Amino acid sequence: MESLYEQAFERGVHVVAANKKPLTIDWAKRQALLRLASESHRSYLYETTVGASLPVIDTLKNLVRTGDRVRAIEGCLSGTLGYLTNELMSGTPLSTAVRTARRLGYTEPRPQEDLSGLDVARKALILARELGIPLELQDVSVTPFVPQAYLDEPEVEPFLSALETIDQEMAERIATYKDEGRVLCYLARIDPTAFRDDSRPVLHVGPVAVDSEHPAAQLRGSEAFVAFTTERYQDYPLIVRGAGAGGAVTAAGVLADTLRVAQTLRGR
Amino acid sequence: MESLYEQAFERGVHVVAANKKPLTIDWAKRQALLRLASESHRSYLYETTVGASLPVIDTLKNLVRTGDRVRAIEGCLSGTLGYLTNELMSGTPLSTAVRTARRLGYTEPRPQEDLSGLDVARKALILARELGIPLELQDVSVTPFVPQAYLDEPEVEPFLSALETIDQEMAERIATYKDEGRVLCYLARIDPTAFRDDSRPVLHVGPVAVDSEHPAAQLRGSEAFVAFTTERYQDYPLIVRGAGAGGAVTAAGVLADTLRVAQTLRGR
Repeated sequence: MESLYEQAFERGVHVVAANKKPLTIDWAKRQALLRLASESHRSYLYETTVGASLPVIDTLKNLVRTGDRVRAIEGCLSGTLGYLTNELMSGTPLSTAVRTARRLGYTEPRPQEDLSGLDVARKALILARELGIPLELQDVSVTPFVPQAYLDEPEVEPFLSALETIDQEMAERIATYKDEGRVLCYLARIDPTAFRDDSRPVLHVGPVAVDSEHPAAQLRGSEAFVAFTTERYQDYPLIVRGAGAGGAVTAAGVLADTLRVAQTLRGR
Repeated sequence: MESLYEQAFERGVHVVAANKKPLTIDWAKRQALLRLASESHRSYLYETTVGASLPVIDTLKNLVRTGDRVRAIEGCLSGTLGYLTNELMSGTPLSTAVRTARRLGYTEPRPQEDLSGLDVARKALILARELGIPLELQDVSVTPFVPQAYLDEPEVEPFLSALETIDQEMAERIATYKDEGRVLCYLARIDPTAFRDDSRPVLHVGPVAVDSEHPAAQLRGSEAFVAFTTERYQDYPLIVRGAGAGGAVTAAGVLADTLRVAQTLRGR
């Protein structure tokens, strides 16, 4: 895919894409791609790679290019896992929630892919790289939504059946969280200050029980959110929240990026 | 101010501004100004007129130009009134809260201007006009934060002293809201579906007690928020939240707009 984009830039074609892959390949290759776009004076817009048409990438770019210092980024970046955690919190057994989500088309055909957290890790990496942090996908500390042993099952039906064996354990965890006034969510955390500090990860994605005041605790349905804590947004983060997945909002985001490119060409 | 902008466009100069006035003058004049910018192929960016550098205007423009239908916009658009409502909810008497806010520089030198709601009405009008609704400032239904009789006092000190006479009444209202689990906020509501329907206002700004689930109920300090309910963001609105006032974030927003203009010139 990235070689296709290279050809586009070389031929003077702008690129708008929802594809996360060209932004999560080797850092050096990603940099070469963006440099080529810049040197060719071509636009490469990819707002929809994180949070569909929510203004996430553009907001982050504006913070960075106006000289703000980003201290932390936190977000629920998966509508699928957001749906699942909400279902769990309202008492649905894990295996039932995953089956329903799959039937409604909220998961990939292999729900293992959603529950592995890899898609969230890719989004977190895209955000971290906007800060100039040269990390790779394997540098993201990922705690999957369910233990890795379950995810190793390649087939769908045996995987879903196996999940039933942790329904009870999960229900007990959820009950504890409720007693404590906490809410389960699948959170991505980016801590730029940890870069070059081996004691803690810059990028972590995994299930976290947040307290009821946390913006993640208020999400409903398959809502996503991203919170940017920066030097300027220090006391309270800048938060963007809303439907972060789905065909209509993703298509709209791609169209918005395309119209943005068109505007840069206006009046030439 | 608008004639200065006209001269700029006529001379090929782009305009970035935080000034609300050229966008809240007569609809016809505002349209003429934007038409001139467009016909001169000049940019006119004004993101900071609503919510400082929060991505409000650009998000709304993207919704509109990608063909979404905006059904409602709701927001707390005044950091000053947000601060005051938070202080009231935590038990501070109204007159004390206003005096403190003034001393901290959160209000205009004449706090009457903030408490009148006029600044919020201007912001609401700017948003409504982005939807193509040809309303004027006098069409905004404004309920001031305190009764008009108090605002008619032109001097500051007599005004602040007079507020003491409603401290008790306000404290009782706040106590009732707390009992009901509600939170006082100063809310702007835009209802585009009410246009050409004389029975209800398209634009209303005023104090409202929202329930604790409402996004306005969760605001802290001088945070602002805007929620867009649209055809695509129908189940849950698209929400932008964060510090919506202050020198640093406003200057950053003006710089972001300026860099956006610079990008459109890149590679010409």
